[in-house]
Amino acid sequence: MREWEKNIRRVEPYVPGEQPKIANVIKLNTNENPYPPSPAAVKAANEFDLDTLRLYPDPCVTDLVGAIADYYKVGSNQVFVGVGSDDVISMAFLTFFNSDKPVLFPDISYSFYSVWADVYRIPYKAVPVDENFIIVSSDYYEPNGGVIFPNPNAPTALYKELSEVEDIIAHNRDVIVMVDEAYIDFGGKSALELIDRYDNLLVIQTFSKSRSMAGMRIGYAIGNPELIKAMNDVKFSINSYTINRPSIVYGAAAVNDKQYFEECTAKIIATRERSKERLKKLGFEFPDSKANFIFAKHKEAKGAYIFEELKKRNIYVRYFNKPRIDDYLRISIGTDEQMDALFAALEDIL
Amino acid sequence: MREWEKNIRRVEPYVPGEQPKIANVIKLNTNENPYPPSPAAVKAANEFDLDTLRLYPDPCVTDLVGAIADYYKVGSNQVFVGVGSDDVISMAFLTFFNSDKPVLFPDISYSFYSVWADVYRIPYKAVPVDENFIIVSSDYYEPNGGVIFPNPNAPTALYKELSEVEDIIAHNRDVIVMVDEAYIDFGGKSALELIDRYDNLLVIQTFSKSRSMAGMRIGYAIGNPELIKAMNDVKFSINSYTINRPSIVYGAAAVNDKQYFEECTAKIIATRERSKERLKKLGFEFPDSKANFIFAKHKEAKGAYIFEELKKRNIYVRYFNKPRIDDYLRISIGTDEQMDALFAALEDIL
Repeated sequence: MREWEKNIRRVEPYVPGEQPKIANVIKLNTNENPYPPSPAAVKAANEFDLDTLRLYPDPCVTDLVGAIADYYKVGSNQVFVGVGSDDVISMAFLTFFNSDKPVLFPDISYSFYSVWADVYRIPYKAVPVDENFIIVSSDYYEPNGGVIFPNPNAPTALYKELSEVEDIIAHNRDVIVMVDEAYIDFGGKSALELIDRYDNLLVIQTFSKSRSMAGMRIGYAIGNPELIKAMNDVKFSINSYTINRPSIVYGAAAVNDKQYFEECTAKIIATRERSKERLKKLGFEFPDSKANFIFAKHKEAKGAYIFEELKKRNIYVRYFNKPRIDDYLRISIGTDEQMDALFAALEDIL
Repeated sequence: MREWEKNIRRVEPYVPGEQPKIANVIKLNTNENPYPPSPAAVKAANEFDLDTLRLYPDPCVTDLVGAIADYYKVGSNQVFVGVGSDDVISMAFLTFFNSDKPVLFPDISYSFYSVWADVYRIPYKAVPVDENFIIVSSDYYEPNGGVIFPNPNAPTALYKELSEVEDIIAHNRDVIVMVDEAYIDFGGKSALELIDRYDNLLVIQTFSKSRSMAGMRIGYAIGNPELIKAMNDVKFSINSYTINRPSIVYGAAAVNDKQYFEECTAKIIATRERSKERLKKLGFEFPDSKANFIFAKHKEAKGAYIFEELKKRNIYVRYFNKPRIDDYLRISIGTDEQMDALFAALEDIL
């Protein structure tokens, strides 16, 4: 081993879902929105002055921060914007999780949590969800260095009632509690209404799912101004200019278009409810979903088998080869037409 | 103090140059390119399919990595792309600077180096440049945890001959040596030609200066495949999808347009050489610049005074209120017209 190799940070990186390059694929594997971005964002893109690309973007992301603050009726000093919610949560880990006590998160959850903890050398404990994949609030009462969980949870799609979310926050007033709400717009109730009552609460959301802009990389955190300032201080210590000019302009236009947003999420919710019925008839079981995906297991066929068979038919879903969930498929909700193609393929396979 | 405050990471963040929002400003303060992005990038932008923004970008940034690799005649596995060179260098610090020995960099240099070291808790030593602002190679022979310096240096604009750069790399084979070449395209010779001979060398460049795309946030590192793999592993542990779809597409188009790139850099170099003559006549002294800026001190007038007077006239340059350099101004090279406006203002002030 060469000397310089000894000081390389060794990590087990997160493996993202496949991004197939072949055309005519039905892509239900990374929880993207099947509908295009808001026409308001498209209009902003078409009017964008490309000459300005020679200039640095606004390091304070003022226009996008302002648009998000207006939408959620909070102060601009309560909003932090990052390069997707992964960037936001990673920055929040670095900023707030500096205790010797372990950070707590569910064992079946977004698998990036343990990866961030590893890369930043943060002690953590993965708390088992129960046999029905439910996050048990009282499991989070023990002393810890911070708490994070998604609501709805991923990949289970299970939603936790706001009173139970509040119970976890209230039992952890001495640490920061992060609620990762990437999927909240598909039927859940956001913890944002608790922000003013709990100064230790950070709510994280994203433009990648409900706002059809995964390709732009925009995520945000909302919390009390002190938390947001601490995150900005760390952000300005790493990279002052993270959000590029197009993201600021298109993102602000998108968030202002409430009507389109509500229409798209309503369509996805309707397709999801219809999909639940079809999957049941096909012999699948699943926790009830309030997200834009369903986490389903077939009564007889193996998850890995269905996954491979679907892939042969150019339909991509997500399969996790991990303990407790290795018989499950995570199926993103597409358009009605895409879901019908999926159901036809499943009938063929099963 | 509330309990959760104790675990917040406290940092002294980098303060970026002002991004004035008023129109009709002559902006010579952040070393941006005065010319617009390549027409090839503009064409790619106009043809961009906005519907695809609903999908995640390619996490491997294949097309942009490939275009950069082709341009520099290296392998795709030798190129790492990040959100501006700040993101690239920050990721390189996290990946490679994990020794107990201090990382070395010049005391008068890009001020982010100490900020990154602080935020990641990396020990470091700022090595004084000599009285002419020269980086003395033999100062970097002592045991260390890694080395980084810009070439040309910022904010001095001083270029170090490649043989001297190689001397530092050769004396530090047991650690990673990073050469930060944000300004190399304005007349210097890149260390890229040393990549195959030194497996401990990482060269970092950016689209923000010579490629007129500061607003897109694209930087890259080139090195041996093992270094690039280690950086990608860390990157995939933080955020799989950092480079958004427009950046990948516009960036690849820009790097392919060699002719426009060479025309713009030649114009900037010509304007710089002309500006040196004018500044000398106006009573300024400065280290010889091979960058797109000049680091100048007036023989009589104070830097802070000139800075404020220029600002009153809507001309922004950069002033650092720091020991050893508090009489200097860093003046970005604009168009000939912008520089003439600057010289007229300076005549008026002095």
